[in-house]
Amino acid sequence: LKLGELGEQGLLQLLQSFCEPGLVGDDAAILVPEPGLSLVVTADTLVDGVHFSDRTTSPFDAGWRAAAANLSDLAAMGASPFAMTVALGLPPTTEVDWLRSLYEGLSNCLATYNMPLVGGDVCRSPTKTIAITALGQVTPQRVIRRDQAHSGDVVVATGWHGASRAGLELLLNPDLGQKLQPQDYQACVQAHQRPRPRLDVVAQIWQSYEELGLDVSPIAGMDTSDGLADAVCQICRASGVGAILDHQMLPVPPFFQDWLDPDQALDWTLYGGEDFELVLCLKPEVAQKLVARIGGHAAVIGTITADDRQPAVYLINAPTLATIVTLDLRQSFQHFEVAN
Amino acid sequence: LKLGELGEQGLLQLLQSFCEPGLVGDDAAILVPEPGLSLVVTADTLVDGVHFSDRTTSPFDAGWRAAAANLSDLAAMGASPFAMTVALGLPPTTEVDWLRSLYEGLSNCLATYNMPLVGGDVCRSPTKTIAITALGQVTPQRVIRRDQAHSGDVVVATGWHGASRAGLELLLNPDLGQKLQPQDYQACVQAHQRPRPRLDVVAQIWQSYEELGLDVSPIAGMDTSDGLADAVCQICRASGVGAILDHQMLPVPPFFQDWLDPDQALDWTLYGGEDFELVLCLKPEVAQKLVARIGGHAAVIGTITADDRQPAVYLINAPTLATIVTLDLRQSFQHFEVAN
Repeated sequence: LKLGELGEQGLLQLLQSFCEPGLVGDDAAILVPEPGLSLVVTADTLVDGVHFSDRTTSPFDAGWRAAAANLSDLAAMGASPFAMTVALGLPPTTEVDWLRSLYEGLSNCLATYNMPLVGGDVCRSPTKTIAITALGQVTPQRVIRRDQAHSGDVVVATGWHGASRAGLELLLNPDLGQKLQPQDYQACVQAHQRPRPRLDVVAQIWQSYEELGLDVSPIAGMDTSDGLADAVCQICRASGVGAILDHQMLPVPPFFQDWLDPDQALDWTLYGGEDFELVLCLKPEVAQKLVARIGGHAAVIGTITADDRQPAVYLINAPTLATIVTLDLRQSFQHFEVAN
Repeated sequence: LKLGELGEQGLLQLLQSFCEPGLVGDDAAILVPEPGLSLVVTADTLVDGVHFSDRTTSPFDAGWRAAAANLSDLAAMGASPFAMTVALGLPPTTEVDWLRSLYEGLSNCLATYNMPLVGGDVCRSPTKTIAITALGQVTPQRVIRRDQAHSGDVVVATGWHGASRAGLELLLNPDLGQKLQPQDYQACVQAHQRPRPRLDVVAQIWQSYEELGLDVSPIAGMDTSDGLADAVCQICRASGVGAILDHQMLPVPPFFQDWLDPDQALDWTLYGGEDFELVLCLKPEVAQKLVARIGGHAAVIGTITADDRQPAVYLINAPTLATIVTLDLRQSFQHFEVAN
């Protein structure tokens, strides 16, 4: 059955079955914000052939990833989930089963993180398009921003980087994985298809402050949807500081070592993107406490610097202090690069 | 200059110049809701070739219409503007001037209604797509819903209907307008290209209650973006009531009479769509007061009925009480109808 055969009323009924009961049916949804909290608003669009593709992404996974990417933006701001809307553009020839699976993926991810779907819009389009707006709530003093990194902070990455990119390459060329253990292969594919936004980290930050008996102070951070190097560079630029990252401490998945040549491993870790982890800049004692609390593959990967020169982000080899490379934004994924 | 040549940083700088200063640059915008008010959330997507087209809509007008359609959804809920996000999908070959004009149209409309643009997202897409989320605020007791129409209410339309559809036809076939006065031609084109969401009506409703010394009571309403007949039918279905509309009182633009044959005039008025007026169901004395306050072309067009039969919406000729036609949803625009 195709959307064009289902008709608009049938389509709306299908979509409403995934929405929070009682909220849908008017021109808009009504929500009651919690008094004293600020509202966080983020919007994101995913396009067939650009952000997802039937070759590498089932509709369930496309839905999961779309929800996860927006939840990750909320985590990056220190916010907790409040409400999400989904606006779809779809060709009339879209299979109803495809749409149902997309919504199952979306709502499975949202249910995992207690995020209600409160409505949206669906319209005809030649290109499958998923436009999501996520609303979060946050105590005003606990907003995480890009421009709050200070000299003396250390840089924390909350998990492995590069696994999502590796997963994408494995889905496109399964032969690449012949030298990989099955569980490592699966970890990469899972990182790509079902990324987990680090909303869990936000609460751990403030509990770390509390345990240390420290007053809450503004912290810097963002998510690594556009890559680890991009996140560190964006934070440094917004804060007017530099950073030194230690090559030995980079959150490279350990199985990259026997599998990939070192340049490839470094490239995917720094510039792969879509791992949806967080990069945070914190006082060293808070960072240490946080890394211990989160566990997993969280680690301190470098320090924030301030100097008289144009601030830059250096990747060094700690034992020798040799600079390996200066990181910049230009190597990260350029959405609008025109293919030659 | 094309987007692909401008590069992502140049593109973001251009878009940020239209956004509320101080809000953009993080993963999300931070807003402070007014205590005690509910939040209204609505999402809408416009697609090139479906909702706008270079044939009939300049990029400035496409931007204005996109903003106006979402502001109209807020007015339909009784809300005042709070914040808007815009997520764009654009081909790399899009002219930068096209994008700048789109944002000029958007921000001109938003400035007219005191709505701040607080951010968004831009990504590559084969099809130009504009996905908008609008947030409004409303006193909980003053939310306008579809399901609050009661027997004995009268039906108010806040202005002419059919002019936007006429404007579209005139833009596609200018020869159609040979018998029209220039000011009427312009009124139709203006209705299509620069619709004005009726946020002004919302305040007038509650001032009417106040002037009459009446307590605020829930009222029903929605906007007429999908047509006048659709709005009345949707309200009646949601409220479990019927309606009788008087053919003589329908808000037909007066110049339709000498220009169009009667069936065509009726069709465009009932099913044309995109006039972005409001249909409201009110106690007769409130309706009378409101229509007097709004002025312009606002009018009482019928009454809400409840009977034992399946409720229906009848269009009658008041002098003779002859039923002209029973209105239903099926004649309204079906977004997903597959063309033969």
